[in-house]
Amino acid sequence: MSLNIAPGKTNIGWIGTGVMGHSMVGHLMKAGFKATVYNRSKDKAAELLKAGAAWGDTPKAVAEKSDVVFAIVGFPKDVREVFLGDQGALAGAKAGTVLVDMTTSEPSLAVEIADTAKKKGVHSVDAPVSGGDVGAKNAALSIMIGGDKDVVDALKPCWEAMGKTIVHQGPAGAGQHTKMVNQILISTTMIGLCEALLYGYKSGLDLETVFKSVSTGAAGSKSLDNLGPRILAGNFDPGFYVEHFIKDMGIALAEAKKMGLSLPGLALAEQLYLSVQAKGWGRNGTHALMLALAEMSGVDWKGRK
Amino acid sequence: MSLNIAPGKTNIGWIGTGVMGHSMVGHLMKAGFKATVYNRSKDKAAELLKAGAAWGDTPKAVAEKSDVVFAIVGFPKDVREVFLGDQGALAGAKAGTVLVDMTTSEPSLAVEIADTAKKKGVHSVDAPVSGGDVGAKNAALSIMIGGDKDVVDALKPCWEAMGKTIVHQGPAGAGQHTKMVNQILISTTMIGLCEALLYGYKSGLDLETVFKSVSTGAAGSKSLDNLGPRILAGNFDPGFYVEHFIKDMGIALAEAKKMGLSLPGLALAEQLYLSVQAKGWGRNGTHALMLALAEMSGVDWKGRK
Amino acid sequence: MSLNIAPGKTNIGWIGTGVMGHSMVGHLMKAGFKATVYNRSKDKAAELLKAGAAWGDTPKAVAEKSDVVFAIVGFPKDVREVFLGDQGALAGAKAGTVLVDMTTSEPSLAVEIADTAKKKGVHSVDAPVSGGDVGAKNAALSIMIGGDKDVVDALKPCWEAMGKTIVHQGPAGAGQHTKMVNQILISTTMIGLCEALLYGYKSGLDLETVFKSVSTGAAGSKSLDNLGPRILAGNFDPGFYVEHFIKDMGIALAEAKKMGLSLPGLALAEQLYLSVQAKGWGRNGTHALMLALAEMSGVDWKGRK
Amino acid sequence: MSLNIAPGKTNIGWIGTGVMGHSMVGHLMKAGFKATVYNRSKDKAAELLKAGAAWGDTPKAVAEKSDVVFAIVGFPKDVREVFLGDQGALAGAKAGTVLVDMTTSEPSLAVEIADTAKKKGVHSVDAPVSGGDVGAKNAALSIMIGGDKDVVDALKPCWEAMGKTIVHQGPAGAGQHTKMVNQILISTTMIGLCEALLYGYKSGLDLETVFKSVSTGAAGSKSLDNLGPRILAGNFDPGFYVEHFIKDMGIALAEAKKMGLSLPGLALAEQLYLSVQAKGWGRNGTHALMLALAEMSGVDWKGRK
Ligand SMILES: NC(=O)C1=CN([C@@H]2O[C@H](COP(=O)(O)OP(=O)(O)OC[C@H]3O[C@@H](n4cnc5c(N)ncnc54)[C@H](OP(=O)(O)O)[C@@H]3O)[C@@H](O)[C@H]2O)C=CC1
Ligand SMILES: NC(=O)C1=CN([C@@H]2O[C@H](COP(=O)(O)OP(=O)(O)OC[C@H]3O[C@@H](n4cnc5c(N)ncnc54)[C@H](OP(=O)(O)O)[C@@H]3O)[C@@H](O)[C@H]2O)C=CC1
Ligand SMILES: NC(=O)C1=CN([C@@H]2O[C@H](COP(=O)(O)OP(=O)(O)OC[C@H]3O[C@@H](n4cnc5c(N)ncnc54)[C@H](OP(=O)(O)O)[C@@H]3O)[C@@H](O)[C@H]2O)C=CC1
Repeated sequence: MSLNIAPGKTNIGWIGTGVMGHSMVGHLMKAGFKATVYNRSKDKAAELLKAGAAWGDTPKAVAEKSDVVFAIVGFPKDVREVFLGDQGALAGAKAGTVLVDMTTSEPSLAVEIADTAKKKGVHSVDAPVSGGDVGAKNAALSIMIGGDKDVVDALKPCWEAMGKTIVHQGPAGAGQHTKMVNQILISTTMIGLCEALLYGYKSGLDLETVFKSVSTGAAGSKSLDNLGPRILAGNFDPGFYVEHFIKDMGIALAEAKKMGLSLPGLALAEQLYLSVQAKGWGRNGTHALMLALAEMSGVDWKGRK
Repeated sequence: MSLNIAPGKTNIGWIGTGVMGHSMVGHLMKAGFKATVYNRSKDKAAELLKAGAAWGDTPKAVAEKSDVVFAIVGFPKDVREVFLGDQGALAGAKAGTVLVDMTTSEPSLAVEIADTAKKKGVHSVDAPVSGGDVGAKNAALSIMIGGDKDVVDALKPCWEAMGKTIVHQGPAGAGQHTKMVNQILISTTMIGLCEALLYGYKSGLDLETVFKSVSTGAAGSKSLDNLGPRILAGNFDPGFYVEHFIKDMGIALAEAKKMGLSLPGLALAEQLYLSVQAKGWGRNGTHALMLALAEMSGVDWKGRK
Repeated sequence: MSLNIAPGKTNIGWIGTGVMGHSMVGHLMKAGFKATVYNRSKDKAAELLKAGAAWGDTPKAVAEKSDVVFAIVGFPKDVREVFLGDQGALAGAKAGTVLVDMTTSEPSLAVEIADTAKKKGVHSVDAPVSGGDVGAKNAALSIMIGGDKDVVDALKPCWEAMGKTIVHQGPAGAGQHTKMVNQILISTTMIGLCEALLYGYKSGLDLETVFKSVSTGAAGSKSLDNLGPRILAGNFDPGFYVEHFIKDMGIALAEAKKMGLSLPGLALAEQLYLSVQAKGWGRNGTHALMLALAEMSGVDWKGRK
Repeated sequence: MSLNIAPGKTNIGWIGTGVMGHSMVGHLMKAGFKATVYNRSKDKAAELLKAGAAWGDTPKAVAEKSDVVFAIVGFPKDVREVFLGDQGALAGAKAGTVLVDMTTSEPSLAVEIADTAKKKGVHSVDAPVSGGDVGAKNAALSIMIGGDKDVVDALKPCWEAMGKTIVHQGPAGAGQHTKMVNQILISTTMIGLCEALLYGYKSGLDLETVFKSVSTGAAGSKSLDNLGPRILAGNFDPGFYVEHFIKDMGIALAEAKKMGLSLPGLALAEQLYLSVQAKGWGRNGTHALMLALAEMSGVDWKGRK
């Protein structure tokens, strides 16, 4: 194979210009790639179009004009549609095209896309990210990549335009599996964070002072650093949506079940987050778990003095 | 009050020369404090005695010769015994003596000791630590302190000999409450760590490569940094004993119950750690949780290829 | 509509002659219905064929010769295949035929089958059962039925040949939803049963004597009555397969998630049963939960003296 | 030993004339026993005094006038006080007296009382009950008894006046352990009951019709029979107090911990019930768990149409 991907030379397609995708394709364009974009709601692509992106009417149309087609959409069913649907990218891709799914989605779907694509001589890579909207904006994402080594290597100029920690994890699906590891780590850490703050509050401590003692030692975590202060401030804006986190935990639990794993902590986390969503905070950030746990204990977190 | 605590001038007493206490009193001695020590098993004090410490036959005897009496023993019942028992430090303390409990113990017991001591004109401070054996050795502990401000301030030369992060958290008991916050944070984080590694392993990933992707981002934590590599290496030596962690979770749950809190994550963690202990790993480090969770999923972690 | 279902007159089709189906269609035949049967493994139908049943080579072939087609197969994917597949019953059904799924399966799939069937003028009813292999053998099942009232009523001679508690629960899907209620009730009851016996055993009680005290009072349950003695005897034969129970809990959790419910107890039960399966007891009865919980506590249940 | 316990002959003492005790001592009196009673709040004994009971000013005073002293009070600390306190029954008991604790209390405390009593030549038996206020009223309790066989046998006329299922479970503490088995059975059964009803409600089923399908089969339980209809009716009056149930689960978990058992289901139940209490329903019946679980899922159970 002689994939030669470079700014100026390679035409990029991009599907999904939401919170994350919007910044990410912007970096590719700034790096010199010509881009054709598509999004379900066209208005969210307006700025990119103004900045010089072309518009494709469907993922298929995007693929027809592109050498590499990226997507970062919402849920696995969206991934299926934009890659494998009648109007999906694969339908418009010629042999040698590269498909890159950056959505957090199902490992098995990543494998299915790769297998289906291969039959047409099309390459496919899964490359979910962590780092949030801030990481996307600052081109500081961690990108976890699954796919054939030569394709992953060839995409280096793209990865480097968007991220800082770029690791090839293995064959198709390995990127998604790695992202699941990431989400499992976060899920129960969030429970501990919220329960600990609830305990600290009820025991009469000053929580900012508590942070001074606990945040740099063995109990330290990125969740504590990033979300702890927002929880204290009563600011539950996303960040990362509760409903997307529920999607991720659902994927992880389903995969774990297939692999024969019993994960009681993750299962508890999913149910607690379903409570967060049921109470109307699904479009808040993941740290809104605090609100649901506080209510279980009869504490009005936002109204506390 | 005119507490004037300084090396050369102040006589220190120390009860409990185990993993933690041994290093800690050593730092005080190096800082110039004269020390009288006591430990249940005298042999664990041999090195300190050689280095110039005096021996007291009981906590009471220690207190009779000391201006400030520290203890870091095992369980709350030990704390009760060494401070409030017939042969305890309070029995030997004269007015103006300062008692300092650095064991991780019950907040309510800390209050009880402080109240009882006050009746004799004796000061009492609770000052549990985090940072582990390594932190103790390197005088890099985080010390979480509850007690009267002037006493806590007067002890500054002692704190600084042993720790790096020294924070006065509030009145008697506040140190212990803060330590509970610390332990709650760790407890479910440990579940996530082990479940995530189990998932990663079963999905065929190379876990060291996974660490590269996940450890610096939103999923990062001190638990992952410190214990992750030991888990991969199959090294479950303590560190921090499972049985001490169970003690701490038990205290936190009991306090939470008194305060009217529902903490499902912490409760699950305690039960999983009881499983670790039941299977014979109570004197291993807390990351031995991996072994119990692996067995629940039929995985022989140490024997994995 | 003028459905007139009666022995002698109505031709019955039956798909799935396993543990349950085998006995159930036997009762219909004994009641005078002529039956055509199909099963993936033909040998499991041998006895029925000898007793006078006809063989159909596919569910479609069965449907072509039948007025009412029943199925009780394994998993939802099997249900989909035997009803909606190319060689499925619907493909062979003429207008006026009645399809009856007695598998424990997805409520949403029941609705989908009913909607798809309706377009061909075919009736569809979901009618899962409880009562186990014993209930099937003794024609003493509880049958929980979803579908149009007139169709459900017309099937009365069939229901009465197989069951004792026959209740029309509502429209298509309502039978399956009711069965889910049934399984949710059982799932955490099983946890209590096993944890209680473990406690009783470890505290040195004689468990048969304990049963005398607890089984008739507020703690009494069918699970205790039926499965308690088998657990004591160390007999973990099915009964109802662990792997079928995992299927059912998975369906219930997925439906609950769609409905916005947080069910922490059911989620814990599923994970504990995944542990049972991971340890190799998936083809045992549901009371094999005992073995997994005992191992978590380091107890060798079967080897206890 | 020649214990000869009989109406007319034996003087009974009774401590604790609340919901349970009131009916129970009433039955003994009706059976012909002369009784001296004591209760913290004297007014709750008024009816009994009118019916001919004598009053004792303290448990000690009661014991001085009695051959057998029963108690059914609230919490273990009350048990300790009324038996072992300065003014407790043991202080007033002469050799040969029998102490009977019918409170649900700690097994280890039962052993401690028995051992302490033995030193004075006093007999002690633990005999907690199940069956609720209704069982107490109808003399239909299940009485679970721990103690020396001859003493337990001698008490037969008393047991038979109060209960229907009377079982000697073993030595001191065995009665309490058996009661713990009973409570563990109930705890997670209650979770299943509430989660199942929540599921049924949200899926649009008519719950009374659902009961017809599920209550007589494998999912049947006394909890479902007794508490299911009250939950549907929105009647959360006690029955058995949430706060007493929390006491019992706390005892069971503490004993289990001592015995090295991991009981994740019971631990979850305790936390959910702590939520019930935190939300203000501690003095409701145990089926108020429904209200807390419903709120976790954003459902207003009482206000549902
Ligand atoms: N290790 C760690 O990483 C950390 C530990 N802690 C906490 O610090 C405490 C001590 O831990 P660690 O040093 O690891 O444990 P060790 O068991 O090594 O040390 C405890 C010491 O106290 C002595 N001791 C215990 N009870 C008594 C008593 N009744 N009278 C006299 N001496 C007694 C023991 O004597 P003997 O030699 O006879 O056993 C032992 O030397 C625990 O509460 C733990 O939770 C806190 C932070 C970190
Ligand atoms: N056993 C019990 O106590 C109860 C079971 N149920 C439910 O009833 C269902 C059946 O259970 P049970 O009878 O125990 O299980 P079995 O596995 O014994 O029976 C299932 C039968 O269906 C056949 N089958 C499965 N898939 C297909 C297919 N795709 N095409 C054709 N035939 C197929 C199987 O064929 P093959 O012989 O080739 O495997 C088998 O004979 C399950 O959904 C279970 O949850 C409900 C209540 C109680
Ligand atoms: N209710 C039920 O369904 C069942 C209850 N139980 C158990 O029985 C026990 C009693 O329950 P119940 O009768 O419902 O509760 P109540 O609170 O109605 O009764 C307890 C009685 O004991 C008295 N009492 C409590 N502490 C003391 C003390 N220190 N000194 C003197 N008297 C005291 C109380 O006095 P005061 O009037 O001042 O409060 C009260 O009259 C509990 O342990 C409970 O768990 C067991 C089975 C069923």
